[in-house]
Amino acid sequence: MNLNRKPIPVLEAVDRAVAEVTPLKSEAVPYREAYGRILAEDLKATMAVPHFDKSAMDGFAIRSKDSIGASGDDRIEFTVAEEVPAGSTSDYILKENEAFRIMTGAPVPASADAVVMFEQAKMGDGTFTVRKAFNPGENIAIKGEECQPGEVIVPRGTFINPGTVATLATFGYENVEVYRQPVVGILATGSELIEIDQPLSPGKIRNSNGPMILSQLKRMNITGKMYALEADDFDTLLERVEDMLDEVDAIITTGGVSVGDYDFLPKLYEALGAEELFNKVGMRPGSVTTVSMLGTVPLFGLSGNPSACYTGFELFARPALLKMMGHDKIYAPVVDGVLDGDFRKANPFTRFVRAEIDYRAGGIYARPAGFNKSNAVTSIARSNGIIVLPGGSRGYQKGDPVKVMMTDMTTGARQFNL
Amino acid sequence: MNLNRKPIPVLEAVDRAVAEVTPLKSEAVPYREAYGRILAEDLKATMAVPHFDKSAMDGFAIRSKDSIGASGDDRIEFTVAEEVPAGSTSDYILKENEAFRIMTGAPVPASADAVVMFEQAKMGDGTFTVRKAFNPGENIAIKGEECQPGEVIVPRGTFINPGTVATLATFGYENVEVYRQPVVGILATGSELIEIDQPLSPGKIRNSNGPMILSQLKRMNITGKMYALEADDFDTLLERVEDMLDEVDAIITTGGVSVGDYDFLPKLYEALGAEELFNKVGMRPGSVTTVSMLGTVPLFGLSGNPSACYTGFELFARPALLKMMGHDKIYAPVVDGVLDGDFRKANPFTRFVRAEIDYRAGGIYARPAGFNKSNAVTSIARSNGIIVLPGGSRGYQKGDPVKVMMTDMTTGARQFNL
Repeated sequence: MNLNRKPIPVLEAVDRAVAEVTPLKSEAVPYREAYGRILAEDLKATMAVPHFDKSAMDGFAIRSKDSIGASGDDRIEFTVAEEVPAGSTSDYILKENEAFRIMTGAPVPASADAVVMFEQAKMGDGTFTVRKAFNPGENIAIKGEECQPGEVIVPRGTFINPGTVATLATFGYENVEVYRQPVVGILATGSELIEIDQPLSPGKIRNSNGPMILSQLKRMNITGKMYALEADDFDTLLERVEDMLDEVDAIITTGGVSVGDYDFLPKLYEALGAEELFNKVGMRPGSVTTVSMLGTVPLFGLSGNPSACYTGFELFARPALLKMMGHDKIYAPVVDGVLDGDFRKANPFTRFVRAEIDYRAGGIYARPAGFNKSNAVTSIARSNGIIVLPGGSRGYQKGDPVKVMMTDMTTGARQFNL
Repeated sequence: MNLNRKPIPVLEAVDRAVAEVTPLKSEAVPYREAYGRILAEDLKATMAVPHFDKSAMDGFAIRSKDSIGASGDDRIEFTVAEEVPAGSTSDYILKENEAFRIMTGAPVPASADAVVMFEQAKMGDGTFTVRKAFNPGENIAIKGEECQPGEVIVPRGTFINPGTVATLATFGYENVEVYRQPVVGILATGSELIEIDQPLSPGKIRNSNGPMILSQLKRMNITGKMYALEADDFDTLLERVEDMLDEVDAIITTGGVSVGDYDFLPKLYEALGAEELFNKVGMRPGSVTTVSMLGTVPLFGLSGNPSACYTGFELFARPALLKMMGHDKIYAPVVDGVLDGDFRKANPFTRFVRAEIDYRAGGIYARPAGFNKSNAVTSIARSNGIIVLPGGSRGYQKGDPVKVMMTDMTTGARQFNL
C-alpha cells in the first residue's frame, strides 16, 4: 500500500508515455485494405499526373492558331475530322481549321493544342464556329501539371485516408508498406467483476471496461485481445501477464492500481521488472493511472472506474499506441470552445469532463454529459468529446471559454494543445 | 446532350438528397460488435447505477455518528471488526466505534453510513483514529446516484461509441437493436478506366474512384460492394444497374454525368424511371453531380473527376446514407478556421478546397492541400478536411477567416453550418 505517490502534470505524463514507445515493423497490405493504416513508406508518384495531355472538357480539340481573329462578328468555322472518346487516342494530323470531337479525359492528339467546350461552339452540320481566339493549352490538363514522377505525394507516417487509397490506385501500388498494428492485450482485474451473462449479485458489477477499451481500440482501427477475468490473486495474475507478454505489443489493465489491499498491479509490475514511468497524475478522474515499460512493451495501468479508465486511455494509451503505429499525428485535436453548462466544482487538478460537443454556426459548444464522477459510465455514452478544465480555486460557468478535446477523430494533431 | 442544366445552391441540393431517403429496418447485434452502429432503440437503464451503496474509496466504513466531536486534539478511535473486499458483502452489524476495512467498489454494509479514506486515518494495531467528524454518505457512491431504472441513457439514433458499449455491458444488454447498414453498390463507368493490374496505355487511367469510395464508406463503417467496370454501352449498363437494384440499398456511380456524347447515366436514370432530384449544383468541383431516387433507392451520380467525386460523396451521399443508417448527426462539422495559404482564384460558385487542417493552440488553420483542380487526386491524400469558400468576385488570402468542414469525424453535427 503506497499512500505517498507524487502526482506529475498531465502533459509530462503524456510525454513520458509517448517517449518510451517506438514504431513497430512494417508489412505489405493490398491497397484496397489500406484505409486507416499508416504509411511506412513515402508514397511517391510513379508517373506524371496526368500522364498525357488530357481534355478537361467535352468539346472540340483544335489548333489554337486557327482560332486567331475570331470574334462575335467574325466567327471562324471548323470541320470535325475525327472523334476521340475517353479511353481512345488518335494519330490523325489536323489540317487547317479541322478539329477533333473530344470527350473529357480523352488524350488531346499531338496535332491539337486547345479545346473548345461544347458550350463555346455554335454547331453546324459536321462543323462548328467559335467567337473567340483560344490560347494554347486552353481547357487542357497538361501532362504532369498535378505531379511529376518521383515526387513524394505524402510522406511515411501519414494516415491512409480515402484520397491516399485513390492515389495508390492511380500509381499502381497493388500493395503498400504500412506499419504493423499493435496487438493490444486487455486484462480487466477485480473480484467484483462478472461477465455479461452471469447473474448480478450484491457487490458484483458487469465488466464494462473491457468492452469499452475494445471499442476505443476499434475507433483507432486496432483489434484488441481480451484476456479472461482473473481473481485478484497475485500468482495467477503474474502468470497470466507473463503469458500475455509473448503475444502482445502492449497491455492495458483496468483496476488494481489504487491503494487498496487487493490492488496487486504495482507489485506485479515490480515482479516483472517493469520500469515505472509514473504512478500518479495531477488530474481528475484517473489520477492513479500508472504507465510502465517492460522492455518495448508499454503497460497501461488504468483505473477500474469507467470514466477514469476511459480518460486514461484517451490521454495516455491512444497517443502511445498511435506512435507505435507510426502515425505522425498522434494527439486528439484540442480546440477552443464555449462551456454550455455550469461546472461549479473547483478542483486543484486539471479536470476532464465527458462532454456533448455541439458544432453550431457560432462556435463549438460543449456541455458536460451528465453525472460526471470517476465511476460514471453513462456520461461516456452521451459524450463525443472531453472538456478540459484547468485546476484552480474556482468553478466554471455556462459561457466560459474552454478547451475541448475531440475524441471522435480518425486523424489527429501533431501537438497536444492542452 | 443537355447544355441547359440549371444549378441549384449546395444546401438546397443536400436538403433534397436527405429529404428523400428513410432509415432502414433494425437488426440485433451482440453488444461487443456494436461500436460504430446506430441505436435503433432507446438505451434504457435496466437497474439503478450504482445498484448498491458502494465505497468510493479504499478505507474504513463507519457509523458517522460515532465520529461526532473528533478533532486533531481529540481523535476518536475505531476498532476494525471485519473486512469487505470489492465483490464481497457483509451482514455484520457494527457496534459503537467499530468499523469495516473496505475497498473501493465494495458494498457498504447496512450498518455503516460513511467511509474514512486510508489517507484520513492514523493506523494502530487493528485500530485507527480520525481527526474529524464524517457526514452520512461521505465517500460513498449512493445507490442510484448516477441513474434510475427505466431512465433513457441515450436515445434511438445515437452513434454507438465506446461509452455506449460500456453502458450496454453495465445494463446486461447482450444484444442491441441497431439500424441495418445500407448495402451500397459502386459502379465506376468510363471506357478510359482500367484495373490496377492492367497495363497503362495512352488515354487509359487506373480506376481510383472505386477504391476511394469504398474507403469513404469504410470511414462511415459501411461496406461497399464494387461492381465490375463496364464499357460505356447503354444496354449493358442498364442491365447491370437493374441487377444491382436487387442487391443494394443505394447506388453510387462515377463518371457519365457530364454533357459528353458517351455520358449515358442521365438517359439510364430516365430508362429506369428514376426521379431526378437535381442534376447540377452551384459549386466547384462537382457541379455536374446528379442525385435521383428509384423508389427508396438513392442513385448518386458522382463526377468521374476524383476531387469532384470525393466532394460530391461527402456533401450528398454521406449525410443521406447516415440518415438511412438512422443517425441523428448526419452532417460533417463545419467550424471557423483561418486560411493558411492564398487561394486567389475567384469563383462565382461555392468552392470546396481539399485542405490540410492543423489544430494549433491559436485556432484551426487550414491550408489548401496542393493542386486543387476537379481532376486532382493527390490533394485528397494530403487533406483531412475541406475549406469552404463562398462564391463571389474575389479570391482569398492567407489569414482570412474561412469555414472548414471536418471530414475525418466518426460522429458529426445535427446541422450543416455551410
